Amino acid sequence: MLAARLHGFGKADAVLRLDPLDPAPPGPGEVRLEMLAASINPADLNIIEGTYGQLPALPAIIGNEGVGRVAAVGAGVTTLRVGDLAAPLDPGSWGQSRTLAAERTIPLPAGIDPAQAAMILVNPPTAHAMLHGFAALAPGDWVVQNAANSGVGRAVIPIARSLGLRTLNVVRRPELVDELLALGADRVVTEETDLRTAGPDLMDGAHARLALNAVGGTSALNLANALAPGSPHVTYGAMSRQPLKIPNGLLIFRGLRFEGFWLRRWFADTPPAEQSRVFALLAAMIRDGTLRVPIHATFPLRDLHAALQEAATERRGGKVLLDLTVA
Amino acid sequence: MLAARLHGFGKADAVLRLDPLDPAPPGPGEVRLEMLAASINPADLNIIEGTYGQLPALPAIIGNEGVGRVAAVGAGVTTLRVGDLAAPLDPGSWGQSRTLAAERTIPLPAGIDPAQAAMILVNPPTAHAMLHGFAALAPGDWVVQNAANSGVGRAVIPIARSLGLRTLNVVRRPELVDELLALGADRVVTEETDLRTAGPDLMDGAHARLALNAVGGTSALNLANALAPGSPHVTYGAMSRQPLKIPNGLLIFRGLRFEGFWLRRWFADTPPAEQSRVFALLAAMIRDGTLRVPIHATFPLRDLHAALQEAATERRGGKVLLDLTVA
Repeated sequence: MLAARLHGFGKADAVLRLDPLDPAPPGPGEVRLEMLAASINPADLNIIEGTYGQLPALPAIIGNEGVGRVAAVGAGVTTLRVGDLAAPLDPGSWGQSRTLAAERTIPLPAGIDPAQAAMILVNPPTAHAMLHGFAALAPGDWVVQNAANSGVGRAVIPIARSLGLRTLNVVRRPELVDELLALGADRVVTEETDLRTAGPDLMDGAHARLALNAVGGTSALNLANALAPGSPHVTYGAMSRQPLKIPNGLLIFRGLRFEGFWLRRWFADTPPAEQSRVFALLAAMIRDGTLRVPIHATFPLRDLHAALQEAATERRGGKVLLDLTVA
Repeated sequence: MLAARLHGFGKADAVLRLDPLDPAPPGPGEVRLEMLAASINPADLNIIEGTYGQLPALPAIIGNEGVGRVAAVGAGVTTLRVGDLAAPLDPGSWGQSRTLAAERTIPLPAGIDPAQAAMILVNPPTAHAMLHGFAALAPGDWVVQNAANSGVGRAVIPIARSLGLRTLNVVRRPELVDELLALGADRVVTEETDLRTAGPDLMDGAHARLALNAVGGTSALNLANALAPGSPHVTYGAMSRQPLKIPNGLLIFRGLRFEGFWLRRWFADTPPAEQSRVFALLAAMIRDGTLRVPIHATFPLRDLHAALQEAATERRGGKVLLDLTVA
């Protein structure tokens, strides 16, 4: 089997190689997965560059997110059987075979689309956790987000809808408006819309109770201006690479709270049983099509470097996937 | 009696006048206070200018903070007797007489210094509330603050000490270092000290669990860089008039929370019994000298405008007070 192994940090061409490796047989409590698909996320690119907040010991098979079919089961495993689909919880999915503890996988329901399931681990729990972890929201409340056409943004829209929340979505390109409305967004505007003045009209006279920011800079401030007093403003990305600039009055007089979300912290702080409950819910939403991410392109593993280049481009229509069933 | 009444918002000379008024006799549940002293706070100046977050209906006797002696008691008042000292909870203290509900005053213990008691309402509860309301602190934990020689900063130091907390204090002028150490500060440094590099050494290898910011701009960021992951950074003032500039990594990877504190919100959100408990504790600390603010100058009420000019200067050695016992 082939796996993408990182031997240093820097340009992918120089540090990331497809190495031939022997699949390991599963020990007690372990399963071996024949991997089907994996996704390429911004965090993967940052890990290759060495700029991510937490870096692996080298050499390392990388890839945060993927899905496989159980090919062999070790002694004592009761949660998975040969033929089941499962998504590994730990990094290392950019390879054709993985052997890991059964309890470090998410069991997936029969009938789920493997390509969609290969995107369950990062964006859907990010959206779910941000909608649950920062504000006590009630049906009818508004959530405002930028980068609404990103993987997380597209997960926020249907998950918020399933909770009875309404979403005000900010995008850069006007051609995305109809697409997000079709996905269930309540309102979609472009970055040029000043939410301090236009927000209340857009939200039927209300202010938002939660802001989700993946951009930073002026876009982050625009979201803050749409918030009700005392509301949280959560940063989970920094696409503009600009810091947040927060007028003191938003902190002192409006009592806004500026916080951050990092999925690795959520995994570290959330009990395993709660994680399982969340992923079972998200898997059900993927299987029934409620959660669905457009796929921009799928590359065989041998074209890894072309796939990484494609994933690094600014204007994609969806995720870039690796097909791991062919070498 | 004379009282300082605001007739508009703008330059104090034009909008604030000393008006002769008749003292009102106390109705049921009310007391009449002969006012002894009042303080001038930055919020008072901002109200006169019309730039504060909440403005009174005009004309209004202003003055957030003062102390008086009970001169008459209405029917049914059991908490105060003639001769007792009390501090009004509501604005309107820049006058020689006040009549208000007994339950809208803080009863003060006999033997308390009236000049010090005239500064109980704003800075001490701000310091107390910020030390209790944002982080679960344990004895030995470090608190980092800028503007450490301000009224709030000087209250933070002894209150933190009484809780077993340690303080790292940032000041602008090196000549303040010894003064704050004498007040019980554990460490005092000037604004030029880079806390990202120097912080752990200053705090015996630890990071701070709470930052209190009254400056904004680069000073606010400097405090943030001294914080342990997941800690709150609380803004209650903006002396530099510069917004906060927050690198995204402090939010996402370090999980810092940037919040704000406004005393009016604390009064609105805190049950009266809890407010009484806090003020009884603070009054005891003022009476025994644990809480003590230097007084820069005291002006008779007729010199109100000179007092306001003095209070607006940058480099004072302490608070400016109004003596209300003389006209």
